[in-house]
Amino acid sequence: WHLNKILNPHTDGVVLPILHLNGYKISNPTVLSRIPRSELKAFLKGCGWNPYFVEVTNIASAHEKMASTMDQVIKEIRVIKRKAKKTLERPIYPMIVFISKKGWTGPKIIEEKEIEGTFRAHQVPVTINKVDGKTLDMLEAWLKSYKPDELFDENGKLRSIFASILPPEERRLFNNPITNGGELLKELNIPNYKDYAINVKHGNIEAQDMTVAATFLRDVVKMNMDNKNFRLFAPDETLSNRMSPLFEVTNRQWNGVTLSNDEFLMGEGRVVDSILSEHVCEGMLEGYILTGRHGIFDSYEAFIRVVDSMISQHAKWLKVCSELPWRKSISSLNLLLTSHCWQQDHNGYTHQDPGLLNHLVSKKPSIVRMYLPPDANTLLSTIDHVIRTKNYVNVVVASKHPRPQWLSIKEASIHCAKGIDVWDWASTDQGKEPDIVIAAAGDTPTLEGLACVSLLHEFMPKLKIRFINVVDLMRLTSYKIHPHGLTDKDYDSLFTKNKHIIFAFHGYPSLIHELTYKRNNQNMHVHGYNEEGTITTPFDMRVQNKIDRYNLALDVLKYVKKYDKDATKLKKYCKDMLKQHEKTIGELGVDIEEVRSWKWEKLK
Amino acid sequence: WHLNKILNPHTDGVVLPILHLNGYKISNPTVLSRIPRSELKAFLKGCGWNPYFVEVTNIASAHEKMASTMDQVIKEIRVIKRKAKKTLERPIYPMIVFISKKGWTGPKIIEEKEIEGTFRAHQVPVTINKVDGKTLDMLEAWLKSYKPDELFDENGKLRSIFASILPPEERRLFNNPITNGGELLKELNIPNYKDYAINVKHGNIEAQDMTVAATFLRDVVKMNMDNKNFRLFAPDETLSNRMSPLFEVTNRQWNGVTLSNDEFLMGEGRVVDSILSEHVCEGMLEGYILTGRHGIFDSYEAFIRVVDSMISQHAKWLKVCSELPWRKSISSLNLLLTSHCWQQDHNGYTHQDPGLLNHLVSKKPSIVRMYLPPDANTLLSTIDHVIRTKNYVNVVVASKHPRPQWLSIKEASIHCAKGIDVWDWASTDQGKEPDIVIAAAGDTPTLEGLACVSLLHEFMPKLKIRFINVVDLMRLTSYKIHPHGLTDKDYDSLFTKNKHIIFAFHGYPSLIHELTYKRNNQNMHVHGYNEEGTITTPFDMRVQNKIDRYNLALDVLKYVKKYDKDATKLKKYCKDMLKQHEKTIGELGVDIEEVRSWKWEKLK
Repeated sequence: WHLNKILNPHTDGVVLPILHLNGYKISNPTVLSRIPRSELKAFLKGCGWNPYFVEVTNIASAHEKMASTMDQVIKEIRVIKRKAKKTLERPIYPMIVFISKKGWTGPKIIEEKEIEGTFRAHQVPVTINKVDGKTLDMLEAWLKSYKPDELFDENGKLRSIFASILPPEERRLFNNPITNGGELLKELNIPNYKDYAINVKHGNIEAQDMTVAATFLRDVVKMNMDNKNFRLFAPDETLSNRMSPLFEVTNRQWNGVTLSNDEFLMGEGRVVDSILSEHVCEGMLEGYILTGRHGIFDSYEAFIRVVDSMISQHAKWLKVCSELPWRKSISSLNLLLTSHCWQQDHNGYTHQDPGLLNHLVSKKPSIVRMYLPPDANTLLSTIDHVIRTKNYVNVVVASKHPRPQWLSIKEASIHCAKGIDVWDWASTDQGKEPDIVIAAAGDTPTLEGLACVSLLHEFMPKLKIRFINVVDLMRLTSYKIHPHGLTDKDYDSLFTKNKHIIFAFHGYPSLIHELTYKRNNQNMHVHGYNEEGTITTPFDMRVQNKIDRYNLALDVLKYVKKYDKDATKLKKYCKDMLKQHEKTIGELGVDIEEVRSWKWEKLK
Repeated sequence: WHLNKILNPHTDGVVLPILHLNGYKISNPTVLSRIPRSELKAFLKGCGWNPYFVEVTNIASAHEKMASTMDQVIKEIRVIKRKAKKTLERPIYPMIVFISKKGWTGPKIIEEKEIEGTFRAHQVPVTINKVDGKTLDMLEAWLKSYKPDELFDENGKLRSIFASILPPEERRLFNNPITNGGELLKELNIPNYKDYAINVKHGNIEAQDMTVAATFLRDVVKMNMDNKNFRLFAPDETLSNRMSPLFEVTNRQWNGVTLSNDEFLMGEGRVVDSILSEHVCEGMLEGYILTGRHGIFDSYEAFIRVVDSMISQHAKWLKVCSELPWRKSISSLNLLLTSHCWQQDHNGYTHQDPGLLNHLVSKKPSIVRMYLPPDANTLLSTIDHVIRTKNYVNVVVASKHPRPQWLSIKEASIHCAKGIDVWDWASTDQGKEPDIVIAAAGDTPTLEGLACVSLLHEFMPKLKIRFINVVDLMRLTSYKIHPHGLTDKDYDSLFTKNKHIIFAFHGYPSLIHELTYKRNNQNMHVHGYNEEGTITTPFDMRVQNKIDRYNLALDVLKYVKKYDKDATKLKKYCKDMLKQHEKTIGELGVDIEEVRSWKWEKLK
């Protein structure tokens, strides 16, 4: 109801809402049908609409009433459109409240109960007793009341006199390209994402992944300005999600009053983030791609869960459409999750929920794709990929805080194409069978995983470590289950058949169990988010969920075969550091110097 | 805003909503602050409230304005309460719109940007440069503007002149028992659930589990009528969820207009289901139990996903409260899911989603409990249990359609206490090592699992089958992870160390993988809901998701060691039946006679 504060009557279409006030739902009255008409009118006017009431009882006059109201309303919309060309102000759009009986023209009374005009018309108005055929005559009388003989000839064909009043085929609802949006789809103009890369060599600089990605998205916006077919939706979070570069070329679309202190609020803009409602964002993006356009919904990771059910229903829609050959492909539903669980400095526990991945993994594998790029260049490559895809629900989980960067753009492109790979520069197995596998998926796990590798290498230089990074989560599952899944052979060649794997994962650990259930190597030890930690430092979050470098190293030590004095030393060191961490957090509320100043150093 | 159509001013408390219209959220204006005041007024009146506007700029007059408005409003509420004693009609409750600047009394301008009265006041109004200390003086000036010297003495203690105006301790907000609802909690009076049992012997009768359970719940309502501390919430679904027995003793609470055809709508009632909103139901139940009462939210299984995020946040609340010794226990959040994915005859694919289990399994194990009672007597025992528990989120998945019944109430009580068990009467292993394990969790899987056992036994009488039923899903996981988890020894004694397990599961198969990941026996083959099937027959749903007796039996045959002519015969039979099913569904749209007339027969 409040989208009229966003829609621009000049550049956007106009929606004509029709509220069918038929009084009932399955078993109860509807709320709006049982308040005084004056209250309903106030409610709709308060939402910024001009309601027309069409109340009907008689069929013939109903058509006339509705037609004349439609004429009136269309006239009003035309005036609004005309005015909007000259000056932008929020119009009061018309809408219609259509009041008729529920089950109108259906059976009136069956077995002494009123049906028409009551909740009883909701499901099966006439139930036929299969044995004695009771009420069959009523069903027959009802169906015959529509006079099928007058409408159809003896072959069941619509009589030409009625057929002649139908609109021509291309004007009929089913054939309107807006109902099959792929027909209208224009491919996006996309700049070369490599041009937005940052120059990085294995941890030598820090950057904010989301801001780098936003420079690329800024130019996607720019290059599609004429086609007006790319938008970003967010619940008041574009800036918090560190996407300020977008506002170098566009604004937030807003059609309410503006004041001098507002920033980037304009009548037209490719960013829609002025209404703080995940429901509105998801719904608008769905409508936008279903009508042939492209977009991204960026959200705090935890609060995307508000629209779990909406995403499910869209995934269901895509699955069913994939079975209908006449349905044209549409752009994917792209969900960019950031402000994630691993750093919520002043928001805490309520803002931690990496579970959208668990939710979507249960949907059809042909529809769902999930990516966890560990740095800015991999995020660029991932976004470049997802905005080109069709008919998927793509989830990308990304970091927004300044973090060490790992891969050059060349490495990032290769890594994202593979989706999962050994990082040789962070491994000491020289391509041979390792003693231990350290795997990571997500920016924070990658950071801690790499820090764990350096610790291990420092204390136990002979330990053969393999470091694996996972960007495309579905690689972990079998190719028999998901089109991105690895064969057992490829999986084993990465993870080995039986070496212990310490897996640092962005989300809930059990998701990795779920994905790797049927793999040969069952020596999988997953560290992930365990619903621990609240308003605290980034490193303390990791310690509380045992995904930090020290806890990872301690887990590695459980599975090291030759437990020599180097291992003993490392164990003591890790325990000492964890104690020191706990003390420092308690006393000063900051992370220890060893963590704050840690930098990746080339392995010897 | 629409709860005023439910609340009864005589028997319920009155809520005084205060809308703090401070103009901004994190980065944008708020919608309601940028519409004309007349529109806002119309909106609130349209929602059925009488808004008082308190707009303040000056602190001294602000207190006065707010106080006099509060006096006025309380007077109005008293009149409403008095009137309601005599006659019930929906009152127009007062509410307050409090208009002040965002960040009021905070810094006005920092580095030439306005802070007070803009979105910039949202997070950190003054950022201090750690190196040069720039703006530190502004922070100091701001904090000093609250004159701490006047408020506190040199020891930091509140000066007695101010302390003397505080309300006595027991009247302070933190100490109001409503904010620590466990203080107010009265235990439920609960009848003996065994008195509501149906008389059943292993499949000899059919019944509707939800209707049987509702007879028990009806009497829970009745026995707590005086305490008024038990309610059922549902989104227009009490009757669709087959709980009509409730209306023998209570009504649906509704405070709108009623008409002669309405059913069970009254000013007072223990059922709240007149507003079709899962959000409202979940929110009301949360409020109800947080203030020391007890209740159940019954929902279509698929649509509970609308409130995933609300349930998560309540689970987080419970986890944090469990760490605070002064927080008293409150009744559990009880979610009763029915109208589930396995039978949606006329609703189809949109109404299928068993994923709440996947969602909640990621929450703290100390909070979450999940039950899948396979018949009416086990459902009785389960509901009796969950309504007695404290501080949990309990999920119960139940059937509402007429189905064969399995356990006597005595067997059901023992089975539910164990949570998982071998059903000897459906097994042919005589307590010895079986050839194959068939396991089932949920009503439909249990039915098909048992039908599979009879098929196997008929064709291969020598096959040693063990049938296991799981009511308490968390039994499957390790006791190290969840308090209900089995030890490896107990798990192995049920499922064996290495025999193949054909597991028929109510929900997404991967959940069983997740739960049993670390178990010794990895020969687990799960059949469950795979996002297949739409508007079709109950049995066709099972076939499309391969959870039917024939597909289960075919899976068993993959793992049978001695593949003799009996196995060949059974394989042919199953394939033939599936073909016949497909043909019948295509031609007649009904289930085959063999399935419709199937009844459990005692094993020889």
